Amino acid sequence: MTQYKIPVIPGDGIGPEIIAEGRKVIDAAGEKFGFDVDWVEFPHGADHYLETGELISEDSLKELSGYKGIYLGSIGDDRIAPGVLEKGILLAARFYFDQYINLRPIKLLDGVWCPIKDKTPADIDFTVVRENTEDFYIGIGGRAKSGTSKDLLEVHRTLYNAKFGLDIETDSEEIGYQVGMISKEGTQRVISYAFDLAEKSKKHVSSVDKANVLSDIYGFWREEFNAVAEKHPDVTTDFNYVDAMTMWFVKNPEWFDVVVTPNMFGDIITDLGAMVQGGLGLAPGGNINPEGTSMFEPIHGSAPKYKGQNKVNPIATIWAGAMLIEQMGEKEAADTIVSAIETNISEAKVQTYDMGGSAGTSDVGEDIARIVLGK
Amino acid sequence: MTQYKIPVIPGDGIGPEIIAEGRKVIDAAGEKFGFDVDWVEFPHGADHYLETGELISEDSLKELSGYKGIYLGSIGDDRIAPGVLEKGILLAARFYFDQYINLRPIKLLDGVWCPIKDKTPADIDFTVVRENTEDFYIGIGGRAKSGTSKDLLEVHRTLYNAKFGLDIETDSEEIGYQVGMISKEGTQRVISYAFDLAEKSKKHVSSVDKANVLSDIYGFWREEFNAVAEKHPDVTTDFNYVDAMTMWFVKNPEWFDVVVTPNMFGDIITDLGAMVQGGLGLAPGGNINPEGTSMFEPIHGSAPKYKGQNKVNPIATIWAGAMLIEQMGEKEAADTIVSAIETNISEAKVQTYDMGGSAGTSDVGEDIARIVLGK
Ligand SMILES: CC(C)[C@H](C(=O)O)[C@@H](O)C(=O)O
Ligand SMILES: CC(C)[C@H](C(=O)O)[C@@H](O)C(=O)O
Repeated sequence: MTQYKIPVIPGDGIGPEIIAEGRKVIDAAGEKFGFDVDWVEFPHGADHYLETGELISEDSLKELSGYKGIYLGSIGDDRIAPGVLEKGILLAARFYFDQYINLRPIKLLDGVWCPIKDKTPADIDFTVVRENTEDFYIGIGGRAKSGTSKDLLEVHRTLYNAKFGLDIETDSEEIGYQVGMISKEGTQRVISYAFDLAEKSKKHVSSVDKANVLSDIYGFWREEFNAVAEKHPDVTTDFNYVDAMTMWFVKNPEWFDVVVTPNMFGDIITDLGAMVQGGLGLAPGGNINPEGTSMFEPIHGSAPKYKGQNKVNPIATIWAGAMLIEQMGEKEAADTIVSAIETNISEAKVQTYDMGGSAGTSDVGEDIARIVLGK
Repeated sequence: MTQYKIPVIPGDGIGPEIIAEGRKVIDAAGEKFGFDVDWVEFPHGADHYLETGELISEDSLKELSGYKGIYLGSIGDDRIAPGVLEKGILLAARFYFDQYINLRPIKLLDGVWCPIKDKTPADIDFTVVRENTEDFYIGIGGRAKSGTSKDLLEVHRTLYNAKFGLDIETDSEEIGYQVGMISKEGTQRVISYAFDLAEKSKKHVSSVDKANVLSDIYGFWREEFNAVAEKHPDVTTDFNYVDAMTMWFVKNPEWFDVVVTPNMFGDIITDLGAMVQGGLGLAPGGNINPEGTSMFEPIHGSAPKYKGQNKVNPIATIWAGAMLIEQMGEKEAADTIVSAIETNISEAKVQTYDMGGSAGTSDVGEDIARIVLGK
């Protein structure tokens, strides 16, 4: 019997409830496919932060880096200012482990209610590969005030006014600024990953950017995209502005095979993608470093108001669990979990409120585990 | 008879065809409401650029600044690199005239096919106020290479690595970067405009940002939002992350009254809004400087492949024309045009292909002009 050790961070709000169901289903898959998981719990999240002042320590990160895949519930708590936990735990892990791929399958499962008219599961079945360590997520920015030395206000004044022949600022003006950067290496590796995926799929890669306005950063993105595309002459490609992309996700999701996107635009369009595939309760995500430590999570938040109510849909988390064990090498077990999710949905007997049912979180987890075991 | 002089830039692709219909309808409204428009044509666009090398000159901008409202068709041409015309004409005008409001009504008209299930015109009826002169649209960015002096690569290396305990760079690494900035003045004026609008509407303002990750720039935005909100104690508010906002636009558009957003996120969510209201053929936009020169346009592009075919839907342009004459003070004429559009749609007799009909661009313009005239 293969033995795996998998670290798990249940996190905040509904995190512990949904993770419990995810574990249940993976354990069932292990029973069926001959592996056993030793779950190693990590306490990180809001309570741990409020008690100890620690978000996630260097030591914890080092310890976690000994594993291939982390199972994450959800992070976020109303008692703490926006960004503190997300940046201090979730983004810290993505950056520390250099999880440069954020993989988001956008797939309308059979039997799921789609909010878009006239679309069937055959129309909504593609993958978004989001860059996950660069772009506007690098946390470089600040404030500047007239009078501050060496501040960016000077840059602002000079360039902005010279560019547009204006003279709009006053002495009291204050600004907030943010810098985004993408590197050659960072851009090529994620685009290469997308092309490799497309080679095994429908051989089409769609790029997302806003090169007509943010021309410096995304003009660079397009060049790197073209450089990688040249090595894949059998894969067709197209460029899409992010604004237009939100329209195609609604109107023509059937156009897509693999979509590759810079970090921030990826954040935006994958939430829309989650909606198109039936809602956040069904949308998993993987933060992947193919050679290192990856991390899998539902893409929804910690939904504090549902905490402890055994009410929310665990399917996104269970699906993320399937991605996790696929990453460990258990492809057949992973496929079995995804098809068990599909069976649960098409039977439409044990479903949470968001899918029109009245079952609890744990009922759905048990039902999917039962289906995995073929009972 | 009141006499107006209105500059018009038909622009590229289908621009001249749709603008012709917009003028036709405004002229009809003038006939009915007692005003006469002297249209002053400006040649700017792709052909003019290819012939003369000029995008839009300081002299033209100065001349245009003598007017209250400009009527714009569409800008964009496949012969010219992405961004050149958009930045050199459209964005140049927005910045030069300090059109700090981009106003986008998101309204599902009666009889329009909505791609979202179970939504009626009562559910989709709100306004997006997009900041239009700052944020990531200021055009500050560049490339940096290892070895370049005083480059941003140093900043990148130091901050990025220090922040995440990494050491990822190689000597050959190259980066592309972009800077976004918002000012106190620029942020407060657009948010104030949104609150003023909400005061006359359902008294609710929703803010869009990504303060949990781009905390410097959008933390600043939130502070300014709160400062303005304090002056409007009777208006309720909420904050939304842009990623979540794309979900609410699809799932709960009925939640919104006035949505205020930084420039780039506004670009993205208003295209999605256009789709939700039935498609780009129906979505108008106004670039507004309440004290200066405003500019009205359909939000769709120049659709080169339909050029000269009398095929595309002129309704977005006609609706933008209504916004233009409302800005000139002709509120009743503007309302009459919008309701004529609604009549044309609900009669469903004279419609372009995108609405399931087979009429030409000019047929639709004539039909709406006829309805305006009460014939
Ligand atoms: C919670 C937040 C920091 C995160 C992000 O912006 O990446 C989330 O929206 C996601 O998509 O995983
Ligand atoms: C054409 C482009 C520069 C423009 C923008 O990004 O603002 C357009 O998308 C818009 O929304 O008006």
